[in-house]
Amino acid sequence: MPDLSVKAQTDRGATAVSRLRDLLGAESVLSGEDIPIRNLQDWSTLGPTAPIAVVRPADSQGVATTLRVAAEHGIAVVPQGGLTGLAGGARPIEGGLALSLERLVGIEEIDAAAGTMTIRAGTTLQAAQEAAEAAGFFFPLDLGSRGSCSIGGNIATNAGGNRVIRYGMAREMVLGLEVALPDGTLLSSMNKMLKNNVGYDLKQLFIGSEGTLGVVTRAVMRLYPPPSSTMAALCGVSSYEAALALLASARTALGPLLSAFEVMWDDYWMVAMRASKARRPLSGRHAYYVLVEAQGSAASDEGKFDAWLENLAERPLVDDAAVARSIGDVKAFWAARDAAAEFRQVLGPHASFDIGLPVAAMDAYAQACRRELTTRIPGCVSVFYGHIADGNMHIIACAPGAPVQPLDEIDEIVYRLVGEYSGAISAEHGVGLKKKPFLSVSRNPREVALMRTIKQAIDPKGTLNPGKVL
Amino acid sequence: MPDLSVKAQTDRGATAVSRLRDLLGAESVLSGEDIPIRNLQDWSTLGPTAPIAVVRPADSQGVATTLRVAAEHGIAVVPQGGLTGLAGGARPIEGGLALSLERLVGIEEIDAAAGTMTIRAGTTLQAAQEAAEAAGFFFPLDLGSRGSCSIGGNIATNAGGNRVIRYGMAREMVLGLEVALPDGTLLSSMNKMLKNNVGYDLKQLFIGSEGTLGVVTRAVMRLYPPPSSTMAALCGVSSYEAALALLASARTALGPLLSAFEVMWDDYWMVAMRASKARRPLSGRHAYYVLVEAQGSAASDEGKFDAWLENLAERPLVDDAAVARSIGDVKAFWAARDAAAEFRQVLGPHASFDIGLPVAAMDAYAQACRRELTTRIPGCVSVFYGHIADGNMHIIACAPGAPVQPLDEIDEIVYRLVGEYSGAISAEHGVGLKKKPFLSVSRNPREVALMRTIKQAIDPKGTLNPGKVL
Repeated sequence: MPDLSVKAQTDRGATAVSRLRDLLGAESVLSGEDIPIRNLQDWSTLGPTAPIAVVRPADSQGVATTLRVAAEHGIAVVPQGGLTGLAGGARPIEGGLALSLERLVGIEEIDAAAGTMTIRAGTTLQAAQEAAEAAGFFFPLDLGSRGSCSIGGNIATNAGGNRVIRYGMAREMVLGLEVALPDGTLLSSMNKMLKNNVGYDLKQLFIGSEGTLGVVTRAVMRLYPPPSSTMAALCGVSSYEAALALLASARTALGPLLSAFEVMWDDYWMVAMRASKARRPLSGRHAYYVLVEAQGSAASDEGKFDAWLENLAERPLVDDAAVARSIGDVKAFWAARDAAAEFRQVLGPHASFDIGLPVAAMDAYAQACRRELTTRIPGCVSVFYGHIADGNMHIIACAPGAPVQPLDEIDEIVYRLVGEYSGAISAEHGVGLKKKPFLSVSRNPREVALMRTIKQAIDPKGTLNPGKVL
Repeated sequence: MPDLSVKAQTDRGATAVSRLRDLLGAESVLSGEDIPIRNLQDWSTLGPTAPIAVVRPADSQGVATTLRVAAEHGIAVVPQGGLTGLAGGARPIEGGLALSLERLVGIEEIDAAAGTMTIRAGTTLQAAQEAAEAAGFFFPLDLGSRGSCSIGGNIATNAGGNRVIRYGMAREMVLGLEVALPDGTLLSSMNKMLKNNVGYDLKQLFIGSEGTLGVVTRAVMRLYPPPSSTMAALCGVSSYEAALALLASARTALGPLLSAFEVMWDDYWMVAMRASKARRPLSGRHAYYVLVEAQGSAASDEGKFDAWLENLAERPLVDDAAVARSIGDVKAFWAARDAAAEFRQVLGPHASFDIGLPVAAMDAYAQACRRELTTRIPGCVSVFYGHIADGNMHIIACAPGAPVQPLDEIDEIVYRLVGEYSGAISAEHGVGLKKKPFLSVSRNPREVALMRTIKQAIDPKGTLNPGKVL
């Protein structure tokens, strides 16, 4: 294994950078003053670090070449997509290379017969959604950073988002993948078929491995028929048990039309209403606010949704409900749920979490976590919300006005309790750098050992995104 | 790597068998005359082979112990589930051990809040389906061998079956997995959460790897709400284009309710009607027969299905259609599709195929394949049918009455054409032994090299199911 210390890398780096300039062209390799500020960090708030160069290949082979040169010279290389990750997976390594996919953009093909989109890794999620829509299809992956995040990053982190309950995570949408391996091999597995059991399903290795086993360069993504209508309701309920009963009822009555089931605890709602300039979609105060969304495929599905809501009125599950009568209403409901992105203005700097929990235990977790944060950290504010049908809770916590945020203490409380409730330290965002110290909360030593075996087999020199995940 | 020749293994085998008797108890190790005939082969028609012993551990740890002893003594070990595989993956190796999961049976837990079933690998698929139903859930995996095949085998081969279009393959239903690794480590990843992005998703490695990387001992499977109704129609259409238009129409109108879309070419239908004793569900003769199934979640969904069929009548897509009016009708429609299991009585010995193809190319493939089989093999009969919405075609071919079936020649024609049409040599059944010579049709050398890297990293001694897949 090469010495990946900053000094050792810097010594070898100049040769590698010069070699890459020869191979890829000078315009593909930015160093010194030319390094864009945006490539120095992702959204993880870990702060900037300086790579020796930012390499921006124009094509897949250029990505593979970059990895080969990095391996040959013993230089760390960190893949970068839209840089919207919150776990630090794309944070550059001092003295190493940052490998930006920003020039691998565009949709190469939409195959209407197969229902697939062939797309380059650097393309934004929003561009993928829009291209699918223009071709009469629906691409269901959706997350708040859709305008900036890249498809390659979505695949590398197995992104989840708002509609996992119906369409699954990014993993379920990938049919084929092209990946540059750490030794510079360009592996093409651009399958378009739904079923292909010819040997190991290699793409699964790379999906969700956070750029530590290979760099996604292109993908074949599955497309879906567009929904004919979107129905939504925002409900106020007085207990978590009622929220779970509402979920069971929605599952039974709406079946596979159910596309989102988001729960916001009262503490979240109060901050969201301060952060959002929009009109309150629901008056009165409730212990939990539930956003239910369904996508129809026929006119009769709107009636189905309405009938379900009317039946609900006969049961004491829901204290109040607002029903969307327009796309504008649907957007207004989601604005409350998406207001988390604006919490910085209201709460100041804060820690964000993305944990997995057994669905039944989520409220008990929230209570225990809030209690301990409040008791142990003076003035601590914490708010809870999430995709509860997926067992995925988000938490925002901070001590407003504190000169330095007690981030380590908050981490310790949140993740220790995740372990006590048999949860996962990351449901969506990945491990990256930030959650590495807590890996043992959710993975046993044998799992970690097998991960290391795989990493060692595929990246024996350890030059691809070293120190991330493991 | 140990010498895995028959002689070398037999010399070492006696010690290994005696050690296993000590560790697992004599009742767990059958050798010599005690070896059951059923363990000598699977359904691949490759013929029986004699393992030195059949090991039947009573628990997961016993499975891991068997693998450890096999690795220590350099003895091949072949995992066996329900032995219904058609590719030879579970066929024992002469002089090696057969490792039967038949005593690891039973459902350990159904967690209603999480919507999961924790199940031992040797349990039959049918037992899993029945247990889910008894608990008020639906377990959607379904294939013809449901009464014999085991959940562990379904996972190891990433089984597909009848409802992939709606629920995905076995891979999509696995949330957690316990696997015995080749060195005897028992790896427990019994996750119950829908989302868990904590490091590499290790279970993906073992799903579909045909028992060459580890032996599945237990699993957490995802459960679904039971459908409130099942609707089905059997349609006769006169062109493949009409069948594709019917599929597009069903997708749009039925959306996610669509649970199966099976096409039977006329040649299949004629043999099926001879094989089946049931009344013909559709009179007249058509070029293609299409079985469309949808599962409803509310009473209104039956009306939705009927409305779709009525609208169809206004378009010249369908020449004739029968609509199921009862569960009996639904079963009768499926009987025509399932009649393939009885074709031996009508056609005699034959070759069965399970290929993947681009949906748009399936009919052109069928025509080319039929033409070449008929031209090159005197008297050759071939019939075509499949899950066309999944791009999955089955073929049955033979030369009825021939003293020896021209299996190699049929293989050569079918798989060469798969390559020409950019298809997959296995959509469902896996590679096992039978399709190994054709691996290069559907996988490029870099893919095969990476598969070998993974196999070498996880099974460095090569004692787990050697010679299968790779």
